[in-house]
Order: sequence, then structure tokens, then C-alpha cells
Amino acid sequence: MSKKYVYYFGSTKTDGDRSMKELLGGKGANLAEMTKINMPVPPGFTITTETCDAFNKAGSSWPLGLEEQVHEGIGILEAELGRKFGDTDNPLLVSVRSGAAVSMPGMMDTVLNLGLNEATLDGIAKRSGNARFAWDSYRRFMQMFGDVVMDIPHHDFEHALDSVKNEKGVKLDTDLDLHDLKKVVSLYRDIYRKAIGSDFPEDPWEQLKLSIDAVFSSWNNSRAIRYREINEIRGLIGTAVNVQAMVFGNMGQESGTGVCFTRDPANGENVFYGEYLMDAQGEDVVAGIRTPLSISTLEETDEKSYKGLLDLRVRLEKHYLDMQDIEFTIENGRLYILQTRTGKRTVFAALNMAVDMAEEGLIDKREAVMRVPAQSFNQLFAPVLGSESKASANLLTRGLNASPGGACGKAVFTAETAEEWNARGEEVVLCRLETSPEDIGGMAAAKGILTARGGMTSHAAVVARGMGVPCVSGADELHIDSNAGIMVCDGYTVKEGDIIAIDGFTGEVFSGEVQVRPSEIVQVLHGNLKAEDSVLYRNYEKLVGWADEFRRMDVRTNADTPRDTEMAVLFGAQGIGLCRTEHMFFEGDRIIPFRKLILVADDVKRIQEKIDSGAGDKEALTVELQKPLARYNEAIAELLPLQRNDFEGIFRALEGRPCNIRLLDPPLHEFLPQDDDGQKEMAEVMAVTAEAVALKVESLHEFNPMMGHRGCRLGLIYPEVADMQVRAIMEASVKVADEGIRVLPEIMIPLVGNVKELTIAREMAQKVVDTVLSEQGKTDDYINYQIGTMIEIPRAAITADKIAENADFFSFGTNDLTQMCCGFSRDDSGKFLGEYVRMGIYERDPFASLDIPGVGSLVKIGIDLGRKAKPGLKIGVCGEHGGDPSSIKFFDSVGMNYVSCSPYRVPVARLAAAQAVLDSE
Amino acid sequence: MSKKYVYYFGSTKTDGDRSMKELLGGKGANLAEMTKINMPVPPGFTITTETCDAFNKAGSSWPLGLEEQVHEGIGILEAELGRKFGDTDNPLLVSVRSGAAVSMPGMMDTVLNLGLNEATLDGIAKRSGNARFAWDSYRRFMQMFGDVVMDIPHHDFEHALDSVKNEKGVKLDTDLDLHDLKKVVSLYRDIYRKAIGSDFPEDPWEQLKLSIDAVFSSWNNSRAIRYREINEIRGLIGTAVNVQAMVFGNMGQESGTGVCFTRDPANGENVFYGEYLMDAQGEDVVAGIRTPLSISTLEETDEKSYKGLLDLRVRLEKHYLDMQDIEFTIENGRLYILQTRTGKRTVFAALNMAVDMAEEGLIDKREAVMRVPAQSFNQLFAPVLGSESKASANLLTRGLNASPGGACGKAVFTAETAEEWNARGEEVVLCRLETSPEDIGGMAAAKGILTARGGMTSHAAVVARGMGVPCVSGADELHIDSNAGIMVCDGYTVKEGDIIAIDGFTGEVFSGEVQVRPSEIVQVLHGNLKAEDSVLYRNYEKLVGWADEFRRMDVRTNADTPRDTEMAVLFGAQGIGLCRTEHMFFEGDRIIPFRKLILVADDVKRIQEKIDSGAGDKEALTVELQKPLARYNEAIAELLPLQRNDFEGIFRALEGRPCNIRLLDPPLHEFLPQDDDGQKEMAEVMAVTAEAVALKVESLHEFNPMMGHRGCRLGLIYPEVADMQVRAIMEASVKVADEGIRVLPEIMIPLVGNVKELTIAREMAQKVVDTVLSEQGKTDDYINYQIGTMIEIPRAAITADKIAENADFFSFGTNDLTQMCCGFSRDDSGKFLGEYVRMGIYERDPFASLDIPGVGSLVKIGIDLGRKAKPGLKIGVCGEHGGDPSSIKFFDSVGMNYVSCSPYRVPVARLAAAQAVLDSE
Repeated sequence: MSKKYVYYFGSTKTDGDRSMKELLGGKGANLAEMTKINMPVPPGFTITTETCDAFNKAGSSWPLGLEEQVHEGIGILEAELGRKFGDTDNPLLVSVRSGAAVSMPGMMDTVLNLGLNEATLDGIAKRSGNARFAWDSYRRFMQMFGDVVMDIPHHDFEHALDSVKNEKGVKLDTDLDLHDLKKVVSLYRDIYRKAIGSDFPEDPWEQLKLSIDAVFSSWNNSRAIRYREINEIRGLIGTAVNVQAMVFGNMGQESGTGVCFTRDPANGENVFYGEYLMDAQGEDVVAGIRTPLSISTLEETDEKSYKGLLDLRVRLEKHYLDMQDIEFTIENGRLYILQTRTGKRTVFAALNMAVDMAEEGLIDKREAVMRVPAQSFNQLFAPVLGSESKASANLLTRGLNASPGGACGKAVFTAETAEEWNARGEEVVLCRLETSPEDIGGMAAAKGILTARGGMTSHAAVVARGMGVPCVSGADELHIDSNAGIMVCDGYTVKEGDIIAIDGFTGEVFSGEVQVRPSEIVQVLHGNLKAEDSVLYRNYEKLVGWADEFRRMDVRTNADTPRDTEMAVLFGAQGIGLCRTEHMFFEGDRIIPFRKLILVADDVKRIQEKIDSGAGDKEALTVELQKPLARYNEAIAELLPLQRNDFEGIFRALEGRPCNIRLLDPPLHEFLPQDDDGQKEMAEVMAVTAEAVALKVESLHEFNPMMGHRGCRLGLIYPEVADMQVRAIMEASVKVADEGIRVLPEIMIPLVGNVKELTIAREMAQKVVDTVLSEQGKTDDYINYQIGTMIEIPRAAITADKIAENADFFSFGTNDLTQMCCGFSRDDSGKFLGEYVRMGIYERDPFASLDIPGVGSLVKIGIDLGRKAKPGLKIGVCGEHGGDPSSIKFFDSVGMNYVSCSPYRVPVARLAAAQAVLDSE
Repeated sequence: MSKKYVYYFGSTKTDGDRSMKELLGGKGANLAEMTKINMPVPPGFTITTETCDAFNKAGSSWPLGLEEQVHEGIGILEAELGRKFGDTDNPLLVSVRSGAAVSMPGMMDTVLNLGLNEATLDGIAKRSGNARFAWDSYRRFMQMFGDVVMDIPHHDFEHALDSVKNEKGVKLDTDLDLHDLKKVVSLYRDIYRKAIGSDFPEDPWEQLKLSIDAVFSSWNNSRAIRYREINEIRGLIGTAVNVQAMVFGNMGQESGTGVCFTRDPANGENVFYGEYLMDAQGEDVVAGIRTPLSISTLEETDEKSYKGLLDLRVRLEKHYLDMQDIEFTIENGRLYILQTRTGKRTVFAALNMAVDMAEEGLIDKREAVMRVPAQSFNQLFAPVLGSESKASANLLTRGLNASPGGACGKAVFTAETAEEWNARGEEVVLCRLETSPEDIGGMAAAKGILTARGGMTSHAAVVARGMGVPCVSGADELHIDSNAGIMVCDGYTVKEGDIIAIDGFTGEVFSGEVQVRPSEIVQVLHGNLKAEDSVLYRNYEKLVGWADEFRRMDVRTNADTPRDTEMAVLFGAQGIGLCRTEHMFFEGDRIIPFRKLILVADDVKRIQEKIDSGAGDKEALTVELQKPLARYNEAIAELLPLQRNDFEGIFRALEGRPCNIRLLDPPLHEFLPQDDDGQKEMAEVMAVTAEAVALKVESLHEFNPMMGHRGCRLGLIYPEVADMQVRAIMEASVKVADEGIRVLPEIMIPLVGNVKELTIAREMAQKVVDTVLSEQGKTDDYINYQIGTMIEIPRAAITADKIAENADFFSFGTNDLTQMCCGFSRDDSGKFLGEYVRMGIYERDPFASLDIPGVGSLVKIGIDLGRKAKPGLKIGVCGEHGGDPSSIKFFDSVGMNYVSCSPYRVPVARLAAAQAVLDSE
């Protein structure tokens, strides 16, 4: 006996149910389910996804037994309805629709009215007493069959239809009478014959076979493949085919068709929402020729059907326990339901519905937490471009949706201008070829950031997401000339000061004013809106509260300023997982003492070494040392109070939460200007020659700075900077602790690859800690501090057992770990990584979502070795992956104690961490 | 009872033997051993190294019981010799000498004649009947004690001695009479009092205690620590102290002292070799005031002692089974031996002696193989600077001894000049700030290479070692201005064309002519000298022959040209482990088609993609594609025969040995000129604008090229180049196989981090292989080819099980693996890696010697996973580490099938691979 390919649903029998999505597709499984619970579903049958797979594997031929089972299915249908397929008197007409396990545009969609031909047409006309309806159905069938099954250009048919309408001087299809429709059919016949080289098929069985084949084949058309790639749909074998008895919405004014949602899919409100058209079929509702009516007006037009729909709405939600997206048809006043599926929704709607349904008792809190997509959760906090305003704006180009939110302001092309204009109260959008750490001030001052180069993890994208500033990156059609102060796109020129807008949700870039609305939740968090005035905020609070009940991992934030820290705490951060001390050096004039320090550091070191080695004239060397040493110490002394002040502010903002502070990490050349003008300016400020600055820049040049002289490698060679930083941390700790606020500093040594680096750096830090505590007259346990390290070099993960012996904690820096484990430079990999994802070499950009088989294995090795040497070792992650839901799921599975992410992703991480636990149960 | 701190040796008893080096130091253990076998050793005792450790750990105080044991030792000595320590009549005098487990200059060395004071002086004078001798001994003791124990500047004493000699108008110490010596002693007393603030100690016990303390303390003086660092001496706990009864070489013309070697330490010849002085003590032989005499003249002076020495020479070699370095003293015609140790030797001597001793039956072949230091073995093949010529040359500066050998020639500052001048028959030394792949031609044309920047593993160093060209790198005192054609060092200017010389053995750089001699072994291998005329060559052949009997691993070579391949085969290479195809593109005019290809590759790709995507006007695009595609294909077509020809030459030179060929690896920008002039020149040759070239260079710029768009990442995006290379390999294979020579090509896909990269690249290569074989009308098995990959990215090692499923072989690229595992850029790490090694963070430069705990673990993970998936998988290593003995030992231990290294290191690897096996047994 052959395999079961066909699953029937109807009053005779129903073979499937909702659990069989993989086999019957979503549509087929739900048709069976609804039939089982006595919903008014026209009967039919579903050909399984396995059949599609067998068909495609066999070089597009039907597996043995399929034909027989299809005939059998049609047979039951005929018996149930008392009609006959191809019968001239009372013909059975069917629809053929594709339906995979997940909703997937791109495949062949729908053929309605199949089974019509010259002969059956008359039968339908007679039986319905409506010849116009029969011919309208026929011309629709011909058009759909020609287009989607036979691949004849759609516009050929549209053109013919328009020509008849024009001839008659009407606009709507419904204005065509029987005569006109016959003319249309005749034209369609010609089109078909011309395109295919044979007549339109009359045999309903042939029509059916060709349609089923077309659905199967469309699984592998390029649009479908591309859709699956983009949406990361994997592991499916094919689409199912649904063959269902037709019901007609185009039988006249007593008939109609529509789609509706059981709740509002845009905002989640518990109202019935939808559209319909009377005397219409299938795609008329969405085609846009006639304007559909709001579902609420159906109550007047056809009260019975409307009440039926309201009843179905309640029954379906109760049965499916989620908001449903329903297709219905009314045939001569009788209501049929053709499809139901879980409705797509915005994240706003997802949140509101999840909380409402939990409170209605429809679902429990666990389910509510699982219902909201963590990946989109941070969209709740971004300002948005007003939709009407956007619709009328001038779209300039598209880039990557690098950081969510809308922004509008004057275009500026340098970070300095952004800061200046912002200081005088202007709203600006910073437009750069790409951004660098020197641009931080300008980026913070801008409402939005636009770059021509760089991907989703470029400097601009990462920093913007961290700051919660909307960003469109990699808009490569833009030509930005910051010297000339212009930006050109496809012939259109934006000058400095011209208004532009960006949509970080979509990647769109507009010229001209577009209205921007702030996020309601952020308004409440900032105290600009009362919580009782915002349903959205209250639901947000409830949902993340429930999430907190379930999650195992703590969620911390990456923050470098008191302002960011406050924001993160409002978002629920349980501490700082990464405070980057170097960002502090870029703020305002602070760069000056730091540059001073860089200029003389090597002289100090070189002379000191000579003295220590005992070579050379000690006295002369000591004299030589005085001047650079004085400048060096002066610079350190200038930096100390600045950093101490930063830490005090951060500690206060944390209100007793732990704070992981990373000592200086980037290579020194990042702090020096790379361009001639900048070097000249610096030379003036430093009172040295421009050549001296240029020489220093050259001497610090590195071929591969990512793997260069940075992190603890700097701290070990120039210990004074690290010492100053530890001193600033401890002095600030004591000060804030004296104010009665608990302070939990975690001093993190970066870029350790070898335990001995940590041992030495740790000893150095410990010495400073002891000195400060003793200077301040405090006991050793006055401050509960820890000293630990970042695991970001593969060697550190591989030797984590050794490193753990000297570390109070580990924090995985998965950005750098990804770079070195995979051998990709984040700044350069755009050249091939996009292609790699398309080729399926990596499933996703490994900088956006952790590469679990590779980098993940290394993380696991590091955790296992670390905990083997020191059970209970505190381990967290502070790379960008700490805010990515699928990475968070992995981090939960390997036993991380916390993740840390940018402030605006803290709620994402809280939710994702809870989902990770619920998912693993 | 307290621990045993003191080990006695003498006729009464001998506590130690030669096996106790760790405890007694080398000197102490050998004194005990020689006493046991009845050599004429003055009695004494050794204080153990553990005592030193205890002393230093206890803050410089003697452990309990030591004083008692020292007193007991002196007591036995007194009884044995019938003298008494501090006795005025017949005083016992002793020497105090340090002696660690390995020979180690830098610590306090020797105090002779200890026990002398005003009172005992008279006793000695009376007993010996030689007052002058007594006072000479006293002034020597005062000087040694003052200098080495009390740290009074040496020259203070020398100055006083000289003043007395000058006053008398004599030159030699021996010309001073009793009166003069008394004057010297009086001056010494003053010096001592002035420096120390108290009188010279009279009490022999105080003298002894202070001397022992000084030896202990000197273990941790900065010179000793530095020496241990430089020589990588680790794991020792301290030095022993030897207290030994004095015998006197300064008792007159019947007495004397000397050092000798049982064979010639310079060339290994089996002759007695040494120097001596009559009427002399201790350091007089090496001090250089009197010229020592050759040992052979002793036969005339003192036949009995000479015969005694000859007898000892034979007995010591038989006993120790190795060449010995002996100190002896003759006291009034009686011969004493004061020390024996295994003699230091050049690698030339080590080779000759090992083979000689094996043939004499003194040692077996295994021992002979172990005796020659593999690390220095390649010094046998380098030309050397003539030593006299060198001594009289002008030393300019010192750099790193990056590649062994001497070279002399005209200084040139660009690779082009090197090639031009070489072509017209000039010998040149190429001097560069640093070298890059573009310099390859010039490097090959030069006799020697000198760079101002870069470490032992810089491009210059690596390439030079590979080519066997002498190189001094990182001579950072040099200021090279290649535009001006000058090089300045500390005020001295070398102009283009001036003669300079470099010594790659020592790192020295000379100005002016220095004579260069070629290596004898290379002369024979090249057929310029007959094997029977070279003992060295014959011994070399024997030794590597024995090594081959013992080793498990094959040794291959890294070679890119037929010439290198031939050389490597002469050195015993069993195949090519890495043939870098890109080097071929730099030779001569070949860069032109390759640059052509780079210029149009992106256009071709972009237009082709547009066509494939179906967007845009297909016909217009097809027209647009024609021109760049034609140029692209033309370039490929030009390159194909060149590469094919290279491979043919290499296959023939290999004579049936396997050949691992790596497809294109470096990023494209390495093939383009980075400077304006070069770009202009290229633009002219390519018939495009200079802007177009500059734009291309800019578009290919990478922030971290090491982790950029290279390796298989290039091959997957621009498949045509890889296809051309595979075609060249297979066409050449067929051609050479047709000639009757076996060809075993191994096609290697570089920089794989993800098995899917390999899968796709392999399929591409397989397609070309199949095409070529079918075009040539050959069966699938006509060529025994393999397709595999390099493991050089950490992710590849971590996922090696997956990768192995698609690879016929693995070749570990440990250079890149080290870079990415440790997070060091090889080009930049000089800035901190030297300091790191000094700080003990890494034991050795991880690019020179594999970092076993880190990178080694990753290699082991890769091998274990690879063989788990595919038992018996062929695995080799092709990084620089393949020529480093300690790395080779590790590779043997983890089961590599072969190592591959530069041609000149093949003999090193053969020897090291044998030693690895013998060592592990």
C-alpha cells in the first residue's frame, strides 16, 4: 500500500488536526481542526508536505498512489456535496492553495474556481441562476490559472480587462455585465494561446494536476528560497496543497468576502478588526481597486453574518488561545470560514495582548512571557516617525535598520558640528562615511545617525544601539563629502543644515521634515507621563515583572556614564556588566591630558629603563628624566579627579548594584588625531611640533590594531594609567560608601590571554587598592571589591582553569572572541560576511548572534575549565551578544550568571532570559 | 636532627657523586665523582643548593645546623691534611666557589686562599719557605674577597697594584718582589677600610661565613637573574658552595695552573687542547696580562705533569663519555685537578665529536644523535664572516640574529635596486625599514638582508630563513631613508653602494669589507666540493642518516620554486608541505596580469550578480559585462601557463614526493602598490587613470588585514582564480606524470574556519579536477591527488571533527593559529612581546617556539577531533614552528605525520624529530 498523501476534512471524515502542521502545513492543519470543532468550513483535502518533497526529489513527478488518493478525495467531496467534478449540470468547483508549516509568501498562492470550463460554466450559470456570476468566476479562474500556474505575465490579463473597462467607460469590475465578461474571457483565451502555444485546458483533472504541480514547484522558486533565507526558515521539506470546495463571495449583493483579526493587530486592543467587500472574491479585498469596508459596518449590511462572525471570533480565540487572523466568505447570506491562523502583530500589540489574555485567564503568565518577541522588544522604547507624515515624505534611499527609532533634524557632517549645533539647541542628524571613537560626542549630541558604510555591527550601529539613538548604517548610495558639507544621493543634494529624517526601524532615509513621536514607555520612565495614563507602560511593567520571576540569569548593562546608568536602572538593570573607562577620555577636554601622557610615556619608560639597567650616566639620565616625568605625572594627576568623579556618579546611580569596570583597553593610537589638521591642532595645544605628533602617530601605527598593543598589554607596559584608574575607582568607592551607599566595584583586567598577565596586573591593582584604603584609614573589608578578567582571547578560554585561579570573576567579551575565534575583523568582514550568510556558511552574522558551534564551544570550554578550577566562579558576558535573544538562550544553557547589554536592550535581555528558561523546561 | 647541608669529598669519605647535580651543583657533583674514582682532587666539601634556597627564603640567614656541619667539614679537612684553619703554624687555606646545576656566569665566582691573615701568612711563608708566595697569595685573597664578597670596585684594587708596578717600572705581577707585595697589601688594607668602614677581617671563620653568604646572595643578583632569563634557565632553586683545600700554582716555576679540553671545542678534532701558565693562580690564565702557553708545550716544561694530564684526559672521557673541560693546578710538580665539566662546543665540533665518539665506540648512535643541538644545526649551512676580518672591521650596530650566516656587499635601499645591481653582477645587502611581499625579488637577489624594524618572525626574518639568506632584523638604531639613498647610524652615514657586512649569527652590522666563507656542507651538496674532501660533510651525512632511523615523523619543506625544492630535496626533504602559490605572482612581470585581474574582478562580479538576480535590463548588462569580463578572462589566461610551468618544475624537482599546494591566500591589496608613484606606474601599464588605481587600493583597504578578506574567503567570492590554480596544478600533474614521474598533488584550501567553506571550495576544485582529467583523456585515478585544508583559525581546530569529514588531510598553520589564539598580530607584537618574555609571561617568543599550553592545546584539540571523525587522517604542520626543535618535540608527541619547514631547516627538523622520539623513550 502506498503512503498516505491526502488528508480529508469534511462531514464524512477528518483525517488531520492542528498538531499536524509539519505534515499538512498551517492552513491544512487548521482547516482540519476547525472542521473537527464544527466551524462552517467548506470540505476538502490536504496533500501533505512530504508529497511535495517526494515530487521535487523525483524530478517533478507524482509519487505512486498520489493520483489515486486525489481521485478518492475528490470522490468523497462529490459525494458530500452532491456535485460532480467536471459535471455539466452540477459541477464541483474547488480552490487550490499552497500552505507550508510556517506562513511563507513567495510560493504560488491561490487558484480559485478550478473546474470551470465552457461546459461546467453553463451548469454553474443555470444552478445559480446568475450567468454573470459564472462568467465572472470563469474569467477570474483563467486569470489566476494563467498567471500563477502557467507563469503568464499578470499585467497581460490586467491590460485586457482594463481595455474592456475603458471601452465601456467604467472603473470597477462589478460594473461589467455578462456581455463584457464574455469579451474579457475571449481576450484571455487569446492571451493564453499566444503565451503557451495551446488552448486553455478544458479538462478539470488536467487543470487540477497542473495546479498541484505548480504549487509543488513553487517551493523551490527563487522568491520562495530568498524568503526562507531572509526569514531564516530552515528545516522544512516542502509545502502542502489544499484542495477545497469553492464557496462564492461573488454571487451578488448577498455574498461577500473578507479578512478579520480577533483583536487589533496594530495595538492589541480587544476589539474586532477587519475588512470586507460584498460581491467579491479572494484578492479583491486586498487588490485596492475597490475600497474595502470596515468590519463593523457588516452589522448593518448583513446582521446575521456579522453575529456569526462575532461568535466565531470568541470561539476561535477560546480554542486557539491566541489572536486569530481569519478569512471568511458569505455565499448568499451563508457564512463560511476559509482559513484561520495566529495573527501577525506589532510588538506593541503583542505586549498588550499577552498581558490582557493573561488577565482574562485565557493564558498563564508563562505563556504571556513567551508570546512577546524578545528580539523586537526594544522597539517599544524608540521614538517613531509619524506614519502619515512619513507617507508623504521624500524617500532618499535605504540603508540598514541599525538602531530602531525615528529621528528628524538638520543634516551635519562632522561630530564637532553636531555638538556645536546641539549646544545651541538645534536637533541634528549626524551623517558620516563611517564613525570612529572620536565621534562619540557628536553621536551623543545627535537625534539620529546615518552612515554610508558599515554593517549592523559597525561602530556607528553598536554605539547607536548602546545610546538608544536611532541609526541607519551602510546606506551605500550616499556620497558624503564632509569637507564640502554636502551629501549626494542619486543626483539629489543635501546640504549641511537641510532637514532630513531617518527611520531606524526600516532603514529609510528621507529628505525634508517628518514628524517624530517619543516612546510612551520612555516618557513614563522619565516621569514625563503618568503610569496611569499609559496602558502600554502598565502592561510592559507587568510583563517584565513576570519575566523576572522566571529567569535564572541576572541582567546587567554596559554603561560608561551616570546618565546611561540611570536609564539602565530604570530599564531594570541589576548592575553594570561593562563600564568602559576609555570612553571617559574622549569627553570634552579630557583628551588633552591623555594625549599629553601618550606623548611622553615612551620617553619616561626609555630613560627609566636605562637608569634601572645601570647602563649610562645615572645622574645625567636622572636629569633627562625630570621634564618628561613631570609632564607624565601632571597628566596622570589631571586625569585622576575626572575619572574619580565619573565613578562617583556611576556608583550613586547604581544605588548599591555591582559595577564591573574595565581598565583601559584600546590601543593608544585611537586617542591621537590621524589627519594632518588634527595633528597640527594637537601640536599647538601640546606646545610641541607637528612633526613630533606625526612621529608619535607613526610609531603607534599597527598593521592589525585589533590584535595589537592594547588591553592589559598596555597596562603592563605603562602601569601608571592602570594605577590611576584603580585609584580613581577605590577613592570614588570610599567616598560613595561614606555617603551610606553600598558600592560593589569589580575591577576587570582586559585582553588577558595568559594567566601570568593577570597575576602581574592583579598584583599591581591590589597594591593600589591597599594603598588607597590605608590612606583613607579604612579596613581591608570596607569596600567589597573584586578583581577579575575578561575572557575575549581564544587562549584565555582554552587556559581558563589556570586563569580562574587568579580571577574573582570572568566576563566573556564575545565580540573580540568572535573576531579571533573565527578570524574575522569586525571592521572588514562586511566584504564577505554578507555573502557568507547568503551562501549558508554562517546561519546569521556571528557578530549579531553568537556562532554557537564555534565561538559557543569556546565559551563552553572556558566556563567548564573555569568552574572546574573554581566552582561557583561568577561568569557573565558583556559583548553585544548579551542583548541578543538567541545568544541569551545559549548563555543560559551553559550556566552564565548574568548577561550585560546596552541600556536600551536591558528589557530585551530580561524577557529573553526568562524565555530561555521557559523554553528549556 | 637537622637536614644534611654539607657533603664531604676526600680520602676520609665522599658523600656525593655525579648523579647529584641538582643538589650539589655541577662542580660539586663532579668533584665528588672524581674523588670517588681516585682522581687527584684536593679534598673539601659542598654546601647544597637547598641550603642556598633556605638562606634566601629566610631573609639571608643560615638554616639551623649549617654552622655545625661547616665546622665539622672543616674539621675533617684539617684531620685529613694535618693543617688547621686559622693556625699560625700550619694553616689550612681553602677556596670558596659557587656552582649551580648548570654552568651560570653572573654569580659570585671564586675566592682563593681564604684563611690567610697576618698570623697565618707567616705560617705559610715558613712552611713553604717562600715568603713572596705567601704575600702574593694574601694580596690575591684580599683583592678577590674585597671585590667579589664585599663588592668593592675591582678597579680600585687594580689601580693600587698598577701604581706599585709603575713605581717600580715593571709590567708583570711576577716581577714584584716581597717588598713590593707588602706595599700592595698595605694599599689594599686602606682601600678596604675606606670602602667598608672597618678593617679587613682577620678571623678565618668570619672570612668563610661572609664568603658563603656572598655566594648565596649572588644567586639573586641582577646579572645572574638576567643570565638565567636570557638562557632560559628555569626550575633551579639556588647555587651550591664548594669549600676546598687550596693547592697553589703560584709557588714558583715548579707550579702552575691551566684549563684544557679533551678535544678541540671549535672543530671537534680528537686532539688535546688547552692553555696554562707557570707560577700563576686562578684567573691569571684568562686575565690576559700574561699570555698563556699552548698545552702541548707543557711536555717540555714538566713532562711528568703533562703525561699525568694526558692520562687524565683519557680516563675522564672514558668515565664521562663526553668531551671534558678541565681545570688543573700543578703545585711543586704535583698535578691536581680542580674541576671537570662537559665542554661547551660549536655545532661544528658537536657534530664531528658525536660521530667520532660513536665510531670510537664511546657512545652509541642514539646518544650521538642526542648530542648535536638541533636548534643550531642549520648554522652548518650558512656562509660565515672570517673571524680575523671581522675582528678588524668597524662595528656599526647590532640587531637581531634573524637568519644565520655572514654576508657582505653594497648597501642598497630598494628591492628594485637589489635586483638591478644583482643582475649586473654586484653583490648587495638589501637594507629596508621593513620588508613586504613586494620585496621578494630583491630579497632573493641579495646576499644579506638588514631591517631596522621587525622581530625574529617579521616578514624579513621569516622569508630570509626560508631562503637561507643571512638576515639581521630590528636594528633599530638605523635610520634608513630609501628616498635619499642613505642609512644613518649614530652619526655614521652609509650611502647607497657603500660596502657593509652583516653577521646573522650574532646580529652584528659592519661598515666596510668583511671576508665571507661559504659553508662546506652546502659546497658538497651543490657539487662544488667532493664529499671525500670534507670530513664535516661525511659526518653530517652519517648523523642525519642515524637520525632518520629513529624518527617517526616525515620532514617536508616549504618551497615555492623548483630551485628551493631542489635544495630542500638535497637536504633530505620528503616532499613539500607548503607551496605558496601567491609568491609566484610576485615574480617579474607576472604581477601585471594579476593586477589586471584585481582591477576588473569587482565589476565582473557586480554586473554578473545583477544579471543573475533578474533585476535591471539583462541585455544592457550583458553588453556592459563584455569588456571587464574579457579583461578578466584574459588575465586568467595569462596566468594559467605561468603557474602550470611553475608546478611542472616543482613536480619534476620532487621526483615522486608529495606536494601540498595552498591556493591563493593573501588579501588582494598586497598585490597592489601602496605608494603614489607605484600607483601611477601601475595605472600606465594598465591603461587606466591613477585615480582608478588609488580608488581600488582604497576599496581594498582593511583595518585588520590579517583577519580580512583572504584565503578561501577570496576563493569563494572570486572563484575564477582558484579554478585557474587547480587547473594549473592538474594540467602540470598530467604532463609530468606523462613523463613517467610520479606526482602526488595535495590541493590545500586555506583559512577555513567553517566546514561549509571547505565543502563549497572542495566541490569547486573537484569540478575543475574532473574537467581537466576528462579533457586530457585520463581516468579518474591517473593522478593520485588529495584535497584538504589548513587548520589555522581557532574555530577550525574547535570544529575539526566536522571539517575532517570533508578533508583528505589537515595542515596546521601554526603562525596564524598563534596570532588568533593568542590575539597577537605578528607584525605588531614586537612592541610588547619582548617585554613579555622578559617578564616571564611567555617563556619564549610564541612565533618562534610554539606556545604549548595555549596554541598547543588548540592543536591537540584539532588533531583529536579530526582523528575522531576520520581515524588515520594525515596531519602535518607548515608554520614556521615546523623547523623549531622544541615545537617539533611537541608535534611528535601529539601524533603529527609530518612537519614542514624552510629548506635550510630540513636537516634541523630531521634531527629534532629523531631527538623527540629518543627523548620520549
